[in-house]
Amino acid sequence: MQRIFDIDSWEVVTHKLDKENKRLQESMTSIGNGYMGMRGFFEENYSGDTLQGIYIGGVWFPDKTRVGWWKNGYPKYFGKVINAVNFIKTNVFINDKPIDLATDSIGDFTLRLDMKRSILSREFMLEKDDAKLKVSIDRFVSAAQKELFVDAYQFENAGSTSFKLTVNTQIDADVKNEDANYGERFWEILDKSQSENRGEIVAITKANNFGTPRFIVGDEMVNKTDLMPEKTNQLESAVQNQFSKELAPAGTAYFEKRVVVVTSRDYEDQPSLIQAMHELAAKIAEEKLSDLQSAHSQVWAQRWEKSDVEIDGDDAAQQGIRFNLYQLFSTYYGEDDRLNIGPKGFTGEKYGGATYWDTEAFAIPMYLGVTDSSVTRNLLMYRYKQLDGAYVNAKEQGLKGALYPMVTFNGIECHNEWEITFEEIHRNGDIAFAIYNYTRYTGDKSYVLNEGSKVLTEISRFWADRIHYSQRKGQYMIHGVTGPDEYENNVNNNWYTNYLAKWTLKYTLEILDDVSPEQAAELNVSNEEKQHWQDIINKMYLPEDDELGIFVQDDDFLDKELKPVSELPADQLPINQHWSWDKILRSAFIKQGDILQGIWDFIDDFTPEQKKANFDFYEPLTVHESSLSASIHSILAADLHYEDKAVEMYERTSRLDLDNYNNDTADGLHITSMTGSWLAIVQGFAGMRVRHDQLHFSPFLPKKWSGYRFRLNFRGRVVQVSVGSDGTHLTLVSGKPLTIDVKGQNVQLGPETVTA
Amino acid sequence: MQRIFDIDSWEVVTHKLDKENKRLQESMTSIGNGYMGMRGFFEENYSGDTLQGIYIGGVWFPDKTRVGWWKNGYPKYFGKVINAVNFIKTNVFINDKPIDLATDSIGDFTLRLDMKRSILSREFMLEKDDAKLKVSIDRFVSAAQKELFVDAYQFENAGSTSFKLTVNTQIDADVKNEDANYGERFWEILDKSQSENRGEIVAITKANNFGTPRFIVGDEMVNKTDLMPEKTNQLESAVQNQFSKELAPAGTAYFEKRVVVVTSRDYEDQPSLIQAMHELAAKIAEEKLSDLQSAHSQVWAQRWEKSDVEIDGDDAAQQGIRFNLYQLFSTYYGEDDRLNIGPKGFTGEKYGGATYWDTEAFAIPMYLGVTDSSVTRNLLMYRYKQLDGAYVNAKEQGLKGALYPMVTFNGIECHNEWEITFEEIHRNGDIAFAIYNYTRYTGDKSYVLNEGSKVLTEISRFWADRIHYSQRKGQYMIHGVTGPDEYENNVNNNWYTNYLAKWTLKYTLEILDDVSPEQAAELNVSNEEKQHWQDIINKMYLPEDDELGIFVQDDDFLDKELKPVSELPADQLPINQHWSWDKILRSAFIKQGDILQGIWDFIDDFTPEQKKANFDFYEPLTVHESSLSASIHSILAADLHYEDKAVEMYERTSRLDLDNYNNDTADGLHITSMTGSWLAIVQGFAGMRVRHDQLHFSPFLPKKWSGYRFRLNFRGRVVQVSVGSDGTHLTLVSGKPLTIDVKGQNVQLGPETVTA
Repeated sequence: MQRIFDIDSWEVVTHKLDKENKRLQESMTSIGNGYMGMRGFFEENYSGDTLQGIYIGGVWFPDKTRVGWWKNGYPKYFGKVINAVNFIKTNVFINDKPIDLATDSIGDFTLRLDMKRSILSREFMLEKDDAKLKVSIDRFVSAAQKELFVDAYQFENAGSTSFKLTVNTQIDADVKNEDANYGERFWEILDKSQSENRGEIVAITKANNFGTPRFIVGDEMVNKTDLMPEKTNQLESAVQNQFSKELAPAGTAYFEKRVVVVTSRDYEDQPSLIQAMHELAAKIAEEKLSDLQSAHSQVWAQRWEKSDVEIDGDDAAQQGIRFNLYQLFSTYYGEDDRLNIGPKGFTGEKYGGATYWDTEAFAIPMYLGVTDSSVTRNLLMYRYKQLDGAYVNAKEQGLKGALYPMVTFNGIECHNEWEITFEEIHRNGDIAFAIYNYTRYTGDKSYVLNEGSKVLTEISRFWADRIHYSQRKGQYMIHGVTGPDEYENNVNNNWYTNYLAKWTLKYTLEILDDVSPEQAAELNVSNEEKQHWQDIINKMYLPEDDELGIFVQDDDFLDKELKPVSELPADQLPINQHWSWDKILRSAFIKQGDILQGIWDFIDDFTPEQKKANFDFYEPLTVHESSLSASIHSILAADLHYEDKAVEMYERTSRLDLDNYNNDTADGLHITSMTGSWLAIVQGFAGMRVRHDQLHFSPFLPKKWSGYRFRLNFRGRVVQVSVGSDGTHLTLVSGKPLTIDVKGQNVQLGPETVTA
Repeated sequence: MQRIFDIDSWEVVTHKLDKENKRLQESMTSIGNGYMGMRGFFEENYSGDTLQGIYIGGVWFPDKTRVGWWKNGYPKYFGKVINAVNFIKTNVFINDKPIDLATDSIGDFTLRLDMKRSILSREFMLEKDDAKLKVSIDRFVSAAQKELFVDAYQFENAGSTSFKLTVNTQIDADVKNEDANYGERFWEILDKSQSENRGEIVAITKANNFGTPRFIVGDEMVNKTDLMPEKTNQLESAVQNQFSKELAPAGTAYFEKRVVVVTSRDYEDQPSLIQAMHELAAKIAEEKLSDLQSAHSQVWAQRWEKSDVEIDGDDAAQQGIRFNLYQLFSTYYGEDDRLNIGPKGFTGEKYGGATYWDTEAFAIPMYLGVTDSSVTRNLLMYRYKQLDGAYVNAKEQGLKGALYPMVTFNGIECHNEWEITFEEIHRNGDIAFAIYNYTRYTGDKSYVLNEGSKVLTEISRFWADRIHYSQRKGQYMIHGVTGPDEYENNVNNNWYTNYLAKWTLKYTLEILDDVSPEQAAELNVSNEEKQHWQDIINKMYLPEDDELGIFVQDDDFLDKELKPVSELPADQLPINQHWSWDKILRSAFIKQGDILQGIWDFIDDFTPEQKKANFDFYEPLTVHESSLSASIHSILAADLHYEDKAVEMYERTSRLDLDNYNNDTADGLHITSMTGSWLAIVQGFAGMRVRHDQLHFSPFLPKKWSGYRFRLNFRGRVVQVSVGSDGTHLTLVSGKPLTIDVKGQNVQLGPETVTA
């Protein structure tokens, strides 16, 4: 654990320029608006360790992969998000010498991410030679105008001598990824131009051999300042404006940079992209900074209105949950159904910025509760629109139907480990389950009966072809898979995968009974096909151990050496940083819930005894080295009334990044696992379930807390649930009255607060 | 099947310039001398499809690998042989126009690899405009002087008009590998110089980030010709000599190029390398071409004297076995114990030119029979010398002892698929078995009691740590392995691996009883350690199926869909070219013998019923898509008196490359599997075994053949075995009398031929 920011309920703030942990600071001060985002790296050149990163949603590049090239079915490339043209670059000079926070004398430093207004601020006093300069900078990526980035500087001569203050601002296309092979660049400049207080670069991603699209991105900056124009020109891969003036003691100056970023994802061709960029930049140039800022913060206020979670008596927990919601909303708020939620969002290069099953398994259950249903529906539409890619993936494996990718930008698998791409096929079931989950929560059948039935049918066709019949056992099986526990690869009969596959077939058959005749004709599932699916449902093998009374994670699992994590020496944890992959694979240690993931998904299918036996067996073997792990364990522990365990697991997920639990937040935030703290509070502590079109709660109050409150969006209503030592108070914030189940009792909820 | 060369008992010859199959032609006309070698690509530029490849033993480069980089224990790089500086380059011009066999009019073409003398010849008549030029070229890589390459041209004006004949010869460092990432080059030139009839380039492999050594290679050419010197100069990455003269009708000319190739593997520093190169080149320059050639061919004559196999009545089979022996000897004849036998030898880039378990499993059993024991002993010494690397590999996995690499140049694992490097650990047992095999065959205990005991002990320490105890089954197990059948990955309790591990521990304990007290002290195996090994031996789990009466390849294998290869549609074979890797892994189809590999190794350990039951079960599931597969199946089929199957399998291995059975010989020859035809004849058809210090035979004569003869080196003797329809004739060619067992009868063998 490593805590480098202060505890504060609405801010992530520090007064220390932590050069040792600069990358960690940068990750934690990332901002974004779903369309684009960036790490909190400094605008100016910084000679210390730093990870520059600006990313634009849906703009990616296929990288070469050389391992296993002779084997059929391997993905052709590894897809990754690329570092965008650096449009925030601004260097400041005192008497023509550049400032550098790594080496200059710095005082009164503050770095503050105001999550309520969504503004990142930095203040410092810099002394260089005789000069003393006070600088404060506000930046934001607009939630009101997706193409807009704003940076606003205030300068003050806080010393006793005059000096020349110079600001050089650029758009710089000389960027690379830290993970680039052979240090390659990804951008080719199509067009550059600049004038006194503006500049633009239009760049295109390099050609590739894989037939994937190239992206054009246009960046135009408009600069406002009371400094005097000094220089405006082009560098080889940048455009720049430079301003300066002599600043007398107590003299001030301001500098504002507004950047419009447009991409070919939204425009038909380069001319229309450029035209739109110019129009938008011209419009933005007219507006007052305060208007741009308040329009942006207004959107955030609405988001918080719908989703805020308040915790009484634990500021660290309070900060944790808000930080998680803030970063999730910065990554995705459902505006564009061609985009999704990358595991690191816009905060780092790892995971390539692509879409994983995290979305369906972890993000959707939360987005259902905190946003309008349209936000989640767009996540479902994303998969529907990528069905063609999923056909390709299944065909590459020689299988029927649709196989959704483990990692993708466009529906085509773009990861490069066979044990993941070929084998971690439970994702196909998770995508089916998300349709069920959405439908169950929202009551909206319009997706599942139309687009969803197509997705379900094609996924079921994949399962039916992927499953084989074991003559010896007289049952259907799935060999060669990787379950959610990625510390086992290529296992046979992973219980979770088998269960999910069987469930998918069953749910698909149910939905097929409900679709319109036109849709049924379109889906064209024959009776033979349905009978085959039914036969699989009837004879699916699900490994169990009668003696232990548990489901078995996969064949042979119980032959492993079974010792609890508690017996591992502390210096061997996390095992993924201390053990060879080989040793990890052979051990029984579990990365994240596998059987327990299934029990969470289908929690109403199991008896308390079953849940207990499996939790008691598997949780002690679990190292929770996926950031996704803790939340579902918190929920299940709460379900089993293991309250201490539930709280322990909550704490692990809530401040995972803020306290750098996994010692890897410097690489970027664990965006998708940030859903975990909300899930642990709402599904765990408050015991929220949806059964038969009704909300259920069975809340408890963690000992450390004096109370907690959250707002839930449910079928057109906003319901506030407040849990205190005096009971559970329910308020219908908006929408029509409804009946809620609290601890087995029906509660009629109207405009008045009800205590249950 | 594709046959592009004529059937001939001592030659690989064609009269067709087969532009469609140029790469295949090049592979088949590869030559080498253990120290270096090359594909049969043309000296001159050729505008058609071609694969240039000259390789120098032990000169390699570490390539980047990007997959799985975040996992511990992964090899840091992928090691590969690199294309050497092109020292054979010679362009020929007619009236200043370069000849190009891809586009010029060519007649009387002959391409001939004379395996007896080891000379590659090419002849052709070329017409260009009015000119008609007859060219004949002989090339060889000297078996008498490892550093020497010789190329000899004869020209004749076969037309009726004079023309200017020009020869431009070079050493050219502008080469790359076809598999290079991003087309990178590997060579940096340190030094170039040239004069009228000589030239040299000294080059070094590029720096790398992995700390592996850089290699310096010096190439010096000395040219002799009756053409007139015209030009001698440097190009950016080449040196050249150019000669020419006007050739009248019927006029002739000759051109000889002698190249000396030295490497930093043999010299302390660059100056001594350069000095040695100059001295050697000066010495070579003095010699007559005919003397160089006969010294070379003399060595080959001695090799054939010891090892030739003759087949009566089947010229195709005769050519097959000689081609295999020829190419094997070109790759390795034991001169340098730092070198080994790459699966493609010097004939292509695939498999990176590195050392695989093929050596111990397939090459050693043959080399024992056809060469002096010192040749095999050097292969064992190779592993002993790489023990330090094997410690590193085990340590990377967090395990004790020594893990020999799957792929290596220096003992350190350098392949990049975890399912192979981490898991195909049976190789460690195969290396132990090779020590046993050598000792059993030669009777020489000096290796096993000294260096060998160290290798065995460290391998055993690895096994003891890698094996785990299953509390549930009360037995020792090995999880997470890949057996010889690489169409299964990450399986549990591969019978072959478990058997071999158990056997290794047992053999090591036996050897430990025999070593000197000094050696025992050095090995320092405690009694506790020995007891633990004995406990593993006693309680090792070996999966069997009582009902089927077979050993089971691995846990869960029998749950697969078990259908014979004969039921697969022909258009799906080979499955590795038609199926996704995923489907292959899940299928029960076997790439190469796995259980059967074990039964071959330990053939005397099993009853005829056991051998039959396993062969009958597994062979029909085997697709033989490893070129190593057919031979052992031929031997086992012969053992079981399945003579037709034995012959079928022999035919598959004997002419695998000559008939391009696997449709991939264009990439290079299957060098290590070329041992298969010899093994099939000697161990299969002739039933050769060594038991209790005695040679055993139980020969049969394949129906198609009228007889076969082979010579066997055994404990200082050369024994000729001739099998005909009139019985088996045994001749002691040299050495002391011995007693041989033929079909269960002891035969005393002295100078007289004996018929049994």
